[in-house]
Amino acid sequence: MSNNILLYAASENNSDIFYATGFWAPDPFVCIIADGSTTILLNQLEYGRGKREANVDDVVLLDQLIYQMKVKTAPNIFEIVLYYLKSRKISEVLVPQYFPVFFADYLRQKKICVKVSDGQILPQRIRKKPDEIKKITEAVRITEEAITEVIRILEDSKVVGDEIIYQREPLTSEFFREVMSLYFTKRNYFPSKPIVAGGEQACDPHQIGSGKLRPHRSIVLDVFPRSMSSFYWGDVSRTVVKGKPSKALLQLFEAVKDAQEYGCTLVKAHADGRDIHSKIIKFFEKRGFKTGKKNGIPVGFIHGTGHGLGLDIHEYPRIGSSGNALTENMVVTVEPGLYYPGIGGARIEDDVVVRKSRCENLVKLHKRFIID
Amino acid sequence: MSNNILLYAASENNSDIFYATGFWAPDPFVCIIADGSTTILLNQLEYGRGKREANVDDVVLLDQLIYQMKVKTAPNIFEIVLYYLKSRKISEVLVPQYFPVFFADYLRQKKICVKVSDGQILPQRIRKKPDEIKKITEAVRITEEAITEVIRILEDSKVVGDEIIYQREPLTSEFFREVMSLYFTKRNYFPSKPIVAGGEQACDPHQIGSGKLRPHRSIVLDVFPRSMSSFYWGDVSRTVVKGKPSKALLQLFEAVKDAQEYGCTLVKAHADGRDIHSKIIKFFEKRGFKTGKKNGIPVGFIHGTGHGLGLDIHEYPRIGSSGNALTENMVVTVEPGLYYPGIGGARIEDDVVVRKSRCENLVKLHKRFIID
Repeated sequence: MSNNILLYAASENNSDIFYATGFWAPDPFVCIIADGSTTILLNQLEYGRGKREANVDDVVLLDQLIYQMKVKTAPNIFEIVLYYLKSRKISEVLVPQYFPVFFADYLRQKKICVKVSDGQILPQRIRKKPDEIKKITEAVRITEEAITEVIRILEDSKVVGDEIIYQREPLTSEFFREVMSLYFTKRNYFPSKPIVAGGEQACDPHQIGSGKLRPHRSIVLDVFPRSMSSFYWGDVSRTVVKGKPSKALLQLFEAVKDAQEYGCTLVKAHADGRDIHSKIIKFFEKRGFKTGKKNGIPVGFIHGTGHGLGLDIHEYPRIGSSGNALTENMVVTVEPGLYYPGIGGARIEDDVVVRKSRCENLVKLHKRFIID
Repeated sequence: MSNNILLYAASENNSDIFYATGFWAPDPFVCIIADGSTTILLNQLEYGRGKREANVDDVVLLDQLIYQMKVKTAPNIFEIVLYYLKSRKISEVLVPQYFPVFFADYLRQKKICVKVSDGQILPQRIRKKPDEIKKITEAVRITEEAITEVIRILEDSKVVGDEIIYQREPLTSEFFREVMSLYFTKRNYFPSKPIVAGGEQACDPHQIGSGKLRPHRSIVLDVFPRSMSSFYWGDVSRTVVKGKPSKALLQLFEAVKDAQEYGCTLVKAHADGRDIHSKIIKFFEKRGFKTGKKNGIPVGFIHGTGHGLGLDIHEYPRIGSSGNALTENMVVTVEPGLYYPGIGGARIEDDVVVRKSRCENLVKLHKRFIID
């Protein structure tokens, strides 16, 4: 028996329903994949656009169903879906794990068997098709260009005391964030708040960074715009320094760079995400960089090695302490990092395609640390 | 008995958990509101930032719970939450309607009673506090300024044949979208794809618009940026024309403008959203603008009159065919529109605060139609 899949979400913030329908909508709508055919139910407001834009087999107007239901008071969306499922003699549906409990409870109460997917609801999303890889590559190209713009500004700037001066003003995280955000906006990408974290801020991987950037300290640039037309993401990180880094910081950066290149050699079909991650941890340990706690604060390699990339910025698979097996045509990030308050933080991240016996790196940008 | 609330979501795309915690995070985390106190469970990566930034009573480190659980294999988040609930002797939780069915099924199987909220999980979000109204007002101000910028460009442009020329180039939807997006990005607002829909495109309220804008035809500007610091939205629409509109279009616009002003007089505490909406429909009918279908395409006033505005762009209450009672300090949009292919579309939208016996309009921008 093939599973009948039921989705209910807004494609603006749910990539499964966008993937299944190719229809971008700001409000939740219903998608049913049954008997090999995909149907969406749309209200009057979206129906015309859905007919034109959605890549589905059938677009059903909710008002038409309401008319057929012959009810006195306006039914809600759950009642309409129940009616529709019954009219198609569908008594069992498979839903994603995030499916709303309220909707599931209602259908179950009405004797529809609601099974919850034990993994990805659309496993085909995991392996990228050539046109998807092309779209991700386009997003990666834009990401690289924005980082290149930041590096160019750093090249044109000067260390003066404990500031980095560009066009007579001290450089800040906010300035670089604006430079990149404007770059993305002009190219029809969502800017999504790139990380520009320097000095001690760079030691916290989720800190987006604020204030003046200091010379001689590492600056982590983690940049992840999303296309407003294809809706695929790029996700690239580089770490740079203006001035003269401490010896400890230089060693830290070199270890990250080497670990990242080593990580790329490990990514191939049939490799295991958890295994890759533990190899990177060991690699760091051999170089003298232990992961653990110092004064109650986590230090070392304190995040995962990578994650799937596509219509979501974080998607299946994971390369980390909980990891998945890699298969051909997955697109994943490879992004080891090291974080030690007092010394600094560094992270280098590429986006790669998993191939049979190697990975194909979509990122061409250099990994130069010291920007003169 | 007070309800113990359980939330599990990423505050980046869920406003309930952001409202409850004040903590902005890209990945889902757990929030428990029990016995009058709010607790969040965070992983190592977010713990430090959570301690500093979250406006909650307690931040619990997941690793600490895992350590206490004394299990051999790493538990998943559902198992950790179950352990935590049991440790606090919580056997019943109230969850929002969108709570993931997978999580609910797991807890129920483990004898936790999971009740689903029959309305808003955090009803206090509905009535805005003074500081929230201030934040919305700031977002509204930025929205008005961006629309003003578009109107300024239209003023400086010239009708040449069937094009509107500005600095030797024909004006397009894309150009105006870029102008506004850059404006928002520079001011630390998410640009979120403003609608710039002209001519026939303006007849479809969800059409964002593309290509050259034509003279003598209406152009709908529906603009809704979100602050990257407060995370509140503005949402303002204006309709403009460059050149000489047809008599039918002029009448249509005047009806929308009058209906919008009439709508504002109806918005006050204890008014009913459904009642307001049907009054607007009747108002339009009296002016000769019927809502219905023409050649299978919906025409007339084909969307709701308004919606709540806050941390979500569309939130409780609704002013429409399914509407809610209004209470003091709600912030709602008032946005009637008319859409007739062949003539054009128009929509005017203000954001207003519901007060005792009137509404307070947060939007100061003029509603001029013809831009000379």
